[in-house]
Amino acid sequence: MSDYRWKTAITKVQPNKISVRGYPVDQMMGKVSFAQAIYLLLKGKMPSRNVGKMMDAILVSSIDHGASPPSVLAARTVASTGSELNSSVAAGVLAISRYHGGAIEEGMKLFIKIAQRMEERNITKEEASRQILQEMKKKGKRASGFGHRLHKSDPRKDKLFSMAEELKIAGKYVRIVLCVEKELEKMVGRSLPINVDGAIAALLCDLEFPPQIGNAFFVMARVPGLVAHVHEEKTRMKPMRKIHPQDFEYDGPEEKNK
Amino acid sequence: MSDYRWKTAITKVQPNKISVRGYPVDQMMGKVSFAQAIYLLLKGKMPSRNVGKMMDAILVSSIDHGASPPSVLAARTVASTGSELNSSVAAGVLAISRYHGGAIEEGMKLFIKIAQRMEERNITKEEASRQILQEMKKKGKRASGFGHRLHKSDPRKDKLFSMAEELKIAGKYVRIVLCVEKELEKMVGRSLPINVDGAIAALLCDLEFPPQIGNAFFVMARVPGLVAHVHEEKTRMKPMRKIHPQDFEYDGPEEKNK
Amino acid sequence: MSDYRWKTAITKVQPNKISVRGYPVDQMMGKVSFAQAIYLLLKGKMPSRNVGKMMDAILVSSIDHGASPPSVLAARTVASTGSELNSSVAAGVLAISRYHGGAIEEGMKLFIKIAQRMEERNITKEEASRQILQEMKKKGKRASGFGHRLHKSDPRKDKLFSMAEELKIAGKYVRIVLCVEKELEKMVGRSLPINVDGAIAALLCDLEFPPQIGNAFFVMARVPGLVAHVHEEKTRMKPMRKIHPQDFEYDGPEEKNK
Amino acid sequence: MSDYRWKTAITKVQPNKISVRGYPVDQMMGKVSFAQAIYLLLKGKMPSRNVGKMMDAILVSSIDHGASPPSVLAARTVASTGSELNSSVAAGVLAISRYHGGAIEEGMKLFIKIAQRMEERNITKEEASRQILQEMKKKGKRASGFGHRLHKSDPRKDKLFSMAEELKIAGKYVRIVLCVEKELEKMVGRSLPINVDGAIAALLCDLEFPPQIGNAFFVMARVPGLVAHVHEEKTRMKPMRKIHPQDFEYDGPEEKNK
Repeated sequence: MSDYRWKTAITKVQPNKISVRGYPVDQMMGKVSFAQAIYLLLKGKMPSRNVGKMMDAILVSSIDHGASPPSVLAARTVASTGSELNSSVAAGVLAISRYHGGAIEEGMKLFIKIAQRMEERNITKEEASRQILQEMKKKGKRASGFGHRLHKSDPRKDKLFSMAEELKIAGKYVRIVLCVEKELEKMVGRSLPINVDGAIAALLCDLEFPPQIGNAFFVMARVPGLVAHVHEEKTRMKPMRKIHPQDFEYDGPEEKNK
Repeated sequence: MSDYRWKTAITKVQPNKISVRGYPVDQMMGKVSFAQAIYLLLKGKMPSRNVGKMMDAILVSSIDHGASPPSVLAARTVASTGSELNSSVAAGVLAISRYHGGAIEEGMKLFIKIAQRMEERNITKEEASRQILQEMKKKGKRASGFGHRLHKSDPRKDKLFSMAEELKIAGKYVRIVLCVEKELEKMVGRSLPINVDGAIAALLCDLEFPPQIGNAFFVMARVPGLVAHVHEEKTRMKPMRKIHPQDFEYDGPEEKNK
Repeated sequence: MSDYRWKTAITKVQPNKISVRGYPVDQMMGKVSFAQAIYLLLKGKMPSRNVGKMMDAILVSSIDHGASPPSVLAARTVASTGSELNSSVAAGVLAISRYHGGAIEEGMKLFIKIAQRMEERNITKEEASRQILQEMKKKGKRASGFGHRLHKSDPRKDKLFSMAEELKIAGKYVRIVLCVEKELEKMVGRSLPINVDGAIAALLCDLEFPPQIGNAFFVMARVPGLVAHVHEEKTRMKPMRKIHPQDFEYDGPEEKNK
Repeated sequence: MSDYRWKTAITKVQPNKISVRGYPVDQMMGKVSFAQAIYLLLKGKMPSRNVGKMMDAILVSSIDHGASPPSVLAARTVASTGSELNSSVAAGVLAISRYHGGAIEEGMKLFIKIAQRMEERNITKEEASRQILQEMKKKGKRASGFGHRLHKSDPRKDKLFSMAEELKIAGKYVRIVLCVEKELEKMVGRSLPINVDGAIAALLCDLEFPPQIGNAFFVMARVPGLVAHVHEEKTRMKPMRKIHPQDFEYDGPEEKNK
């Protein structure tokens, strides 16, 4: 045993046996979904059936948002130089940062702060929200997870919340985010509806994930989207083209009637 | 309409409506798993229930392989400098390349070449495999997807193949990979069993994915693993530690008795 | 001594002493330029005064080319999401690939192939160039390092060649690249002048660098340019802006009359 | 003129003419060193001869520090998977972060804070240093740029300071860093000598660079080192080797007797 010896609690690899957090990978295959395995990997315990369904829905909700996000533009720009798929995807991941995806982590921190304030001062969520929003306003900081340039009523958010109620996952933090939405509207004088990042932030809090993992959810959910864009860029477009950040149109399959 | 206008067939984004390959994201949530949505995103059509199950199993099979793969070591090394989670994960993605994960793409190309040879020369898969393995041998090239340093009988491979049979997905390419395994053993004089990458390669061929997407499967499957390692590095380890590439031990939960 | 022990011939680090290729760093400071130290680092020997001047000129020639190259657009796109400077620069480096900067390596390989053909078949450079250009044409491959979308007569190329003559560095490979330019014009029927990448490729061959290092020269030269663009993006622009790939104008200092 | 039009003050590109901050690149070649051109690029003005020499020395001082820094280990780890040179270097750049190279930016911020405190409160540098060091101590923060695991008396630091005096560049900030070193020793009870990052931080302040560019200096200086390590890894080592982070030895050229 050398001075370098270190420990890891994630995966045990032995000859012909790989176990993630104690669960043999081959035994999980066919029984748990990829999203459930992700929960196990990150939380260290197997999700209930309901939590597993929520995980799938959260990851599906953010799988792609078209060609305009900076992560897609960075990935396509790199792909257009002939760079490998993995390098192009990596460039996209580098763009999932403070202003792009970062609202999940920021939102989680805000909601946790409100919950702590409620406890510390023994006040209602409305009071705690008002106090903290006022403190943020004074510092010129905006609440993350509210408002969207394009979606005034994001259908992904509604679905996340209705599923969370049905699956009995919605808890303290879903109530807090809804409360912040109301207090924010009173304060600002106009509606700043919860966006998909804000909804995910609240759900990840109710699922007891730490805020430091918030950005990771966006990364994990969006990597398949980046793969699709990089593959399209490499197979459909000419190398070194000038990639306009908004002047594109969708020419894929028509919308399915559900 | 400017000179820059371009087209994309992946996702249509309109106010309050996001549709991937024609399917509204909010309608997919709660109905399709993340893995099924990935299939839709990459192939442009919704998978059957069986194909969806196969997708989940493929992605689960490669979700993590402990701390020794270079992608994990690169990600942990970057994380230990205080770099952000997304940057650390990106460094890991950069290591998913020719010799690490690359066997999927190489395997796919090999199996497709054998299938083409069978058609072109109207020969059996055994003959085609022998011909092509001989040609590779002359060039000093080795078949990708066979043999493993540690796993002589990879349980993930067995599970992938048994599921593929059950789900009626195993087709021409599963038969080809099994044939290559036999011919390779005759040629080399010792067993070089199909590894998990070789099995995934055959299945992706039977699912009609192009080889260029092979590496992407490894990237998508392993990103959650990289996230788990980066998070552990950031929360459990001291910054700037010297990370030994093999001298570590697992101290996580004991193996569950299924 | 463990099984892991490995060797490196680049830099020896001892307490209070750091030596690159045998030269103490502190003794190089003040005596050799950064470009000379780069030569030492990569070639393992100290450059002559003339070679050092050539190195400085090569690196200066590619230090920046405005905001339109994909490396700059990728770096700015990532920077605009609030990503750190180093991550943004890394995204730019990922774009320095086959079609962007890659002409140096491809050019070097071409010129070396011509030189080898001359020797093998004991033919003139004109004949060797013709043969190889014809072979490339049959395969649909184009010679790298010739022609430029914007610069018909690149002043950087002229300066590189005039300096190479003055400094007695121009040798076999400069003669070969000039010969290829002529043969290419005859073959294609119009002028495809040597561009800055083609000129650098020839000079790096005459300086006896291996082609595998060709792309590195572009990376090393352009990283300061990427830094300048990322810094400008972070300090002058709004986060998450839509970055048009060509619709920008220069508003910096007027041109100096030297 | 579209809505997208934006401005940049770095480089103007016209047919057959490229000017950085007003200076035609071809006219700089042969006249200014790469390091001088970097100064021009980042500061927007041509350096004096003395400042140019200082720039060369700063960049040379950090060009490489052997194989143990995490940036080198990340780059080599990625290179060993068969990833391209530029991708491997990018992984290394991702590791130049808070705890590795970050001391330059942190040091600059500290020295600027001390200078501001001196002005605001009209106190000596000794008093300002003491106040701010005490404030940092209370918050459990350590001063960046002091102390080194290996080098008790870093010869690069001594050379940087002696050159800065000779070249008349040492100013207010060099005096501040020397003062902090003394006050720190009194406070801590043992010597924590200025390290190379601390010295560079002070010089960059005296050269009037903003702290946000601090990390960039480490990136620009070290990229050639990363290139050398990646090239060595790719040409000398076997793919996928296990890279021990410290158990290596130098077998390059012997030290030159200057």
